[in-house]
Amino acid sequence: LVRNDADRNLIDVLLDVGQRITAFYGERSRGDLKEPGELVTAVDTEADRLLVEAIRSLYPDHGVFSEESGGSAASTRRWIVDPLDGTTNLLFGVPHFGISLAREVDGVVVQGLVYNPMTEELFYADVESRGAYLNGQKIHVSQTAKREEALVALGFSATYRNIRRYYEEWPAAFDSTRKAVGLLAPALNLCNVAAGRIDAFIDFGSSVEGHAAAAFLVERAGGLVMNYDRSRWDHRSRGVVATNGALSDLHA
Amino acid sequence: LVRNDADRNLIDVLLDVGQRITAFYGERSRGDLKEPGELVTAVDTEADRLLVEAIRSLYPDHGVFSEESGGSAASTRRWIVDPLDGTTNLLFGVPHFGISLAREVDGVVVQGLVYNPMTEELFYADVESRGAYLNGQKIHVSQTAKREEALVALGFSATYRNIRRYYEEWPAAFDSTRKAVGLLAPALNLCNVAAGRIDAFIDFGSSVEGHAAAAFLVERAGGLVMNYDRSRWDHRSRGVVATNGALSDLHA
Repeated sequence: LVRNDADRNLIDVLLDVGQRITAFYGERSRGDLKEPGELVTAVDTEADRLLVEAIRSLYPDHGVFSEESGGSAASTRRWIVDPLDGTTNLLFGVPHFGISLAREVDGVVVQGLVYNPMTEELFYADVESRGAYLNGQKIHVSQTAKREEALVALGFSATYRNIRRYYEEWPAAFDSTRKAVGLLAPALNLCNVAAGRIDAFIDFGSSVEGHAAAAFLVERAGGLVMNYDRSRWDHRSRGVVATNGALSDLHA
Repeated sequence: LVRNDADRNLIDVLLDVGQRITAFYGERSRGDLKEPGELVTAVDTEADRLLVEAIRSLYPDHGVFSEESGGSAASTRRWIVDPLDGTTNLLFGVPHFGISLAREVDGVVVQGLVYNPMTEELFYADVESRGAYLNGQKIHVSQTAKREEALVALGFSATYRNIRRYYEEWPAAFDSTRKAVGLLAPALNLCNVAAGRIDAFIDFGSSVEGHAAAAFLVERAGGLVMNYDRSRWDHRSRGVVATNGALSDLHA
């Protein structure tokens, strides 16, 4: 799938950084970490630094944008980096977190990589690849067409305000699907839509770093992506809704 | 830690069955599985059969109770089996599910084993062990005393009715903690309380199979367990509340 040395090297870095992140899994109680926030900061900062350094070295004519490092939004070619998607899960001892990398040219995503180091799953697509891939195997969205049979993930922490918002703005997704759960890892949840494991993912709070690569993967796997307000997809906006494309009545 | 051949053999079976379960991870889209329910049934049934057979062979004088197989509740010595804790997570492609085994003598839990096959984490305690263990390393609950700093997991699928119930019955846990999330794997969430990764877990719907072993682990790790209605802990009742014991004002 991968066509050049820079991409191959980037994947090596991705796997290596993933390995380093797993060392923090379940480690909140380490004596040198006084509070949970410090754990997250330590992981985020370290992973971000390694990824940004690697990208600057491998793609010297690209910009880099990440939550940690910031970066020029004006670059015509840039990598969008999320060093730790699913931070809350890492904190809660749930092995559902990963790294997201999206390459953007003239405002359009042309390559996406998402890696879960705990399960060693690498999701990949680029504009030239036919479709999207999980560890080299082609993936495709599900074919579930009926809302009552749908598995839907929503991105939220359990504050009543967050939950009410979904209930009011996406009532059909929330209460009339087969099963809806709150899951906190936008990139991986979108990848699970791409892989046909779930039928939809809705998140009002996801950021460009978290969803850029994986939303691209959903599209390449045959799915439909839109903004949270149901308008035409722009990965630079906040929030995301991704479905298999067949769940036509989810938007009611 | 483990003192006899039967226990050693049981752990071998546990690891083997765990390995078989991981083969189903993310496999909803397999052609031979028409709908999600079939996947769960296939995993549950197979894992349950193997575990129950092994226990009957290794502990001929014990009864066995499991959701799948049922079993005599009247046995004075019995194993309580949950072949698949976190079913929803398996279905949603979240690697946070496992197997739970509790040994009960005269209505009291005396041994607990919980295994997450994706992370290869085995949680263990018995009445003679000093405390509780994760892969042979001693674990202990957290020391977080302030609610505002607490990480709290709640067990729910995202129906509005479920969520409202927690909001009304556990308002302090829900909206004034540092972070509360909904996580669907009672045994593993309780183990994460035991390991100090999170500070509390609240579930109105957990069953004896799901929580018996892990609630025992929480107690052995220094934590506090009670029934969902705040009464004295009885693992045979539905629902569970487990905290680190220091979060004194969570029950407000």
